[in-house]
Amino acid sequence: MNTRFSRRHFMGSAAAALGALGLRPATALGAGIRPPPPGIAPRDPYDDLAKLSSNENPYGPSDKMMASMNAAWKYSNRYGYPDGDVLEKIAEHHGVDTRNIIMHAGSGETLKVAALAFLRHEEKVVGVEPTFLTVYRAASGVDADAITRPLLSDHTQDIDDLIQVTKRNYRDVGMVYVCNPNNPTGVVVPDADIRRLLDNIPEDIPVLIDEAYHHFVKDPRYATAVPYIKEGRKVLVTRTFSKIYGMAGLRLGYGIAPPEMIDEMRTYTTGTINALVKWGGVAALEDNESEAWVRDTTIALRDATANELRNQGFEVIPSETNFFMVHTGRPASEVRAEFRKHDVAVGRDFPPMLDYLRVSIGTEEEMKRFLTAWNQIFPDGMTTTGAR
Amino acid sequence: MNTRFSRRHFMGSAAAALGALGLRPATALGAGIRPPPPGIAPRDPYDDLAKLSSNENPYGPSDKMMASMNAAWKYSNRYGYPDGDVLEKIAEHHGVDTRNIIMHAGSGETLKVAALAFLRHEEKVVGVEPTFLTVYRAASGVDADAITRPLLSDHTQDIDDLIQVTKRNYRDVGMVYVCNPNNPTGVVVPDADIRRLLDNIPEDIPVLIDEAYHHFVKDPRYATAVPYIKEGRKVLVTRTFSKIYGMAGLRLGYGIAPPEMIDEMRTYTTGTINALVKWGGVAALEDNESEAWVRDTTIALRDATANELRNQGFEVIPSETNFFMVHTGRPASEVRAEFRKHDVAVGRDFPPMLDYLRVSIGTEEEMKRFLTAWNQIFPDGMTTTGAR
Repeated sequence: MNTRFSRRHFMGSAAAALGALGLRPATALGAGIRPPPPGIAPRDPYDDLAKLSSNENPYGPSDKMMASMNAAWKYSNRYGYPDGDVLEKIAEHHGVDTRNIIMHAGSGETLKVAALAFLRHEEKVVGVEPTFLTVYRAASGVDADAITRPLLSDHTQDIDDLIQVTKRNYRDVGMVYVCNPNNPTGVVVPDADIRRLLDNIPEDIPVLIDEAYHHFVKDPRYATAVPYIKEGRKVLVTRTFSKIYGMAGLRLGYGIAPPEMIDEMRTYTTGTINALVKWGGVAALEDNESEAWVRDTTIALRDATANELRNQGFEVIPSETNFFMVHTGRPASEVRAEFRKHDVAVGRDFPPMLDYLRVSIGTEEEMKRFLTAWNQIFPDGMTTTGAR
Repeated sequence: MNTRFSRRHFMGSAAAALGALGLRPATALGAGIRPPPPGIAPRDPYDDLAKLSSNENPYGPSDKMMASMNAAWKYSNRYGYPDGDVLEKIAEHHGVDTRNIIMHAGSGETLKVAALAFLRHEEKVVGVEPTFLTVYRAASGVDADAITRPLLSDHTQDIDDLIQVTKRNYRDVGMVYVCNPNNPTGVVVPDADIRRLLDNIPEDIPVLIDEAYHHFVKDPRYATAVPYIKEGRKVLVTRTFSKIYGMAGLRLGYGIAPPEMIDEMRTYTTGTINALVKWGGVAALEDNESEAWVRDTTIALRDATANELRNQGFEVIPSETNFFMVHTGRPASEVRAEFRKHDVAVGRDFPPMLDYLRVSIGTEEEMKRFLTAWNQIFPDGMTTTGAR
């Protein structure tokens, strides 16, 4: 069976063909070409936008994943069906038991479920700000508070501070949240710091370590926290197929934790997973070649783009993810509005870092569009005030 | 763009072709044909099973739904994307505001979320037994009890009894659950009874009316409970795309309720919906022709099968759904095991109705296989003891 939709399609075949000719799409061939009649090759404005705002993988699922998903359509109408042993494959991937895994419709579900399960008696969650907000938001939904602490001046998470705050509020704390590497900064917490955190807070407090960007990390000081689960610690690691595997819109993620934490989370899990997506997940874990290509290409484009901005005098926070933050020196909201005029979407505000802009890594063509727009928005490099 | 997978594929093309020749598949052409070498046309034992156990739609999504879903693959890797205005389309379908709708990954999620939201302080849920168990199970997860009442001897729900029990336990009751038509009996609660229930219990108690099988009902005494929501009553109606639209494995359903109930449910919703599935849902609501074909074909096959059993002297409970219950006169578990030997899967036990068998309506070919097996299991009609 052929795949329905290849990676090539994701790149936009018509635009790519024109691009290969060195021409800009749509208007480059001159005024002689009339717009198409209705119903013929309709243009979707959504396609024109360079989407560098949501830390998405711009390539989508690999051909092997697409083949696996397309072969699963016959389970569309079924409740029970062969699912490629996706749960077993995930457990095997981490060398843990299936009782250590809870699958969800994206790791955002795992974060929300953890908040409902571990903060439901109005316990507090401890963590930094800015970070990924799903846990804090879910906490406030069940009237639990977040005790949020600022980052250090080098944008790292102050682990000693988190330890002190957790110990000081011991009786009220239901969970500690660490996004590693952190979103929106892209900065890792070294393994030694994770270990120090676990060793120094009361061992009955669950620690949620959100490893959504795990696959992009090269820093040798970083390590996954999964081994701490094998040691029997109250650690929940979350992983997602949304980033490295390009499945954000398809919804697959999971948590890894001791079985008693998994069982507690099951009660508060309401979502279920699409049949095709289970098969996509199995194929993703097996398609190491595509995974490596996405990782290497993303890192290469990230570093090339960041270095170009650094050469212009801008501070770019060293990132280990598929995005980076750059110091704009003026409100990022203004810069974002300028980018939007160039059909480039960049990250939202992340208070209190209001003069930093988060840029997700798109395709090579999208990063060129980003830099072209950047150079027009900041024509004089870091000295530009932004008034035009 | 062509559809990837048409309804024809769901029927099993090779088997269908042989069937058209009046031949039985696989062995009908005689011993001259050797089994295929490995990797060529592998047989999946799953495909051989007549799946009449889970009230599934045997046809799967319509071609129009498939086209709509296949065109949405390009959103696989996105968090935000055009979704066909699925929420607005569902609201419009019922003539309510979008604030009256909460979308879920199947209506099972709506049931579970309702239990978490409305029974979280260990309130009790009132309803009959046997019925669909998701609400009672979710209730026990949060240490809430179910007060379950027996059906009347004609298998209908005893609404006056439910009213009395609810009033008697008023301070403890968090929700009343009515599956209409009921699963596993297939019997409707007339609209007059629903109204009497709502009029006679305290108006602050939410009533969940599970209309999963709504589309198959012809009985003029039945009506959807959506108008009661428009009257401002504390009613939650659940609907699913799993049955009439064949999306059980894809996961789409929703709840309709007053906005304040929807908001309360949002806190306890952890699931999210696949991008393709949103587009499938939009196409499903628009594809009235396919919906009518599935409904009419299912009802015709149900009535023909049920009448054949009645002619043999068996009691078949009058059903308004895509399944029926037949009185086997001996443990249904034994009969189920016999069917399994014929590669026919039928419904599980539904205590206390342990000598009734629930049979879901499959394709014409599957119902023929069901009757062939039935005639071998009960060679002498209702007089058969089952000993062979």
